[in-house]
Amino acid sequence: MNRVLDFYFDFSSPYAYFAAMDVDKLAERHSLALHWHPILLGAIFKKTGAQPLLSMPLKQDYAQHDLERTARLKKQPFIMPPQMPFMSLAACRAFYWLKQQDNKLAHSFAKNVFKAGYQMGLDVSNSAVVTDLVVALGFKEDKIQAGLKEQWVKDELRSAVDKAESLGVFGSPYFIYNNEPFWGYDRMPLLDDWITKEGW
Amino acid sequence: MNRVLDFYFDFSSPYAYFAAMDVDKLAERHSLALHWHPILLGAIFKKTGAQPLLSMPLKQDYAQHDLERTARLKKQPFIMPPQMPFMSLAACRAFYWLKQQDNKLAHSFAKNVFKAGYQMGLDVSNSAVVTDLVVALGFKEDKIQAGLKEQWVKDELRSAVDKAESLGVFGSPYFIYNNEPFWGYDRMPLLDDWITKEGW
Repeated sequence: MNRVLDFYFDFSSPYAYFAAMDVDKLAERHSLALHWHPILLGAIFKKTGAQPLLSMPLKQDYAQHDLERTARLKKQPFIMPPQMPFMSLAACRAFYWLKQQDNKLAHSFAKNVFKAGYQMGLDVSNSAVVTDLVVALGFKEDKIQAGLKEQWVKDELRSAVDKAESLGVFGSPYFIYNNEPFWGYDRMPLLDDWITKEGW
Repeated sequence: MNRVLDFYFDFSSPYAYFAAMDVDKLAERHSLALHWHPILLGAIFKKTGAQPLLSMPLKQDYAQHDLERTARLKKQPFIMPPQMPFMSLAACRAFYWLKQQDNKLAHSFAKNVFKAGYQMGLDVSNSAVVTDLVVALGFKEDKIQAGLKEQWVKDELRSAVDKAESLGVFGSPYFIYNNEPFWGYDRMPLLDDWITKEGW
């Protein structure tokens, strides 16, 4: 049986950071194949008319408070990046460039982007920071910089966003398990329950 | 110790319906004073730029699916009202008119509005249906109809909406326990945990 969990997210989503810290354990517990899919939500928001969480009055203050409370509950470090939402284009492209070569390294890279941004306070919207994170995984700087400009890398990212949109992904984090969608970090316990029971 | 839970909602919010079916038990379990506050979210959405859940592309389909799934999980009946969002002005006014006379009856009325709308498929945006629900609690039809037009009733509703907004309420259902806000039906387990631990 090949059970698959797809994890869609924008690096610029702080709730995706918390999800990213938990999702591997969830997949492992249920022996699922797990696929990480970084996307650019901005492109989808333009179509749905949604606004980034952290640019809406009232909701913004609530989210800030809730994220800090979540960090305390989960005993996870959490730093709010100074600019929200930030542009995660370079990080996304680096992910798909890496994935073509080594899926596991791409996965490690994605986790490191989240940790760098939300635990260490690094500016992961900056392509120099992104490059450093890939160098740290054993790649040459000039090779990465050339890679990020490759047309096929841009196409991979675009097709990931299009695929996500066609599957109904409208927010981050967003999980799909056997066609069953779950949106939001706060739905992870329900996702877990759904996988355990194979639906209800 | 006088511990209070405030429950803000728009009758037109289907997740508020599920919350309304659970919140009394939650308050009872923790011996809390519980106050129900129906509001008109539309007025707040105009300021925050938010859109009703069920009028956003992608999110709309997800919500429809999620509400049906929630009903199965919670073993609660659920009918999606034919028009969403609907105008809950008459129901809100009837609530505040009733509350002035009998807080418990207002509470029963609010639960009945949710049940009529989401379990029986009645059109609770219709003031005749609202009037029937108040008549069923022992009031005279002409007295109710006059009541719904009273200036003080309109003022009560307006001041409830203003108060909610000033407290940061931007969605439905929205709970405030000792200044601690929780937005969303899916946060009720966290609210429960917070009350149990008196925060974390």
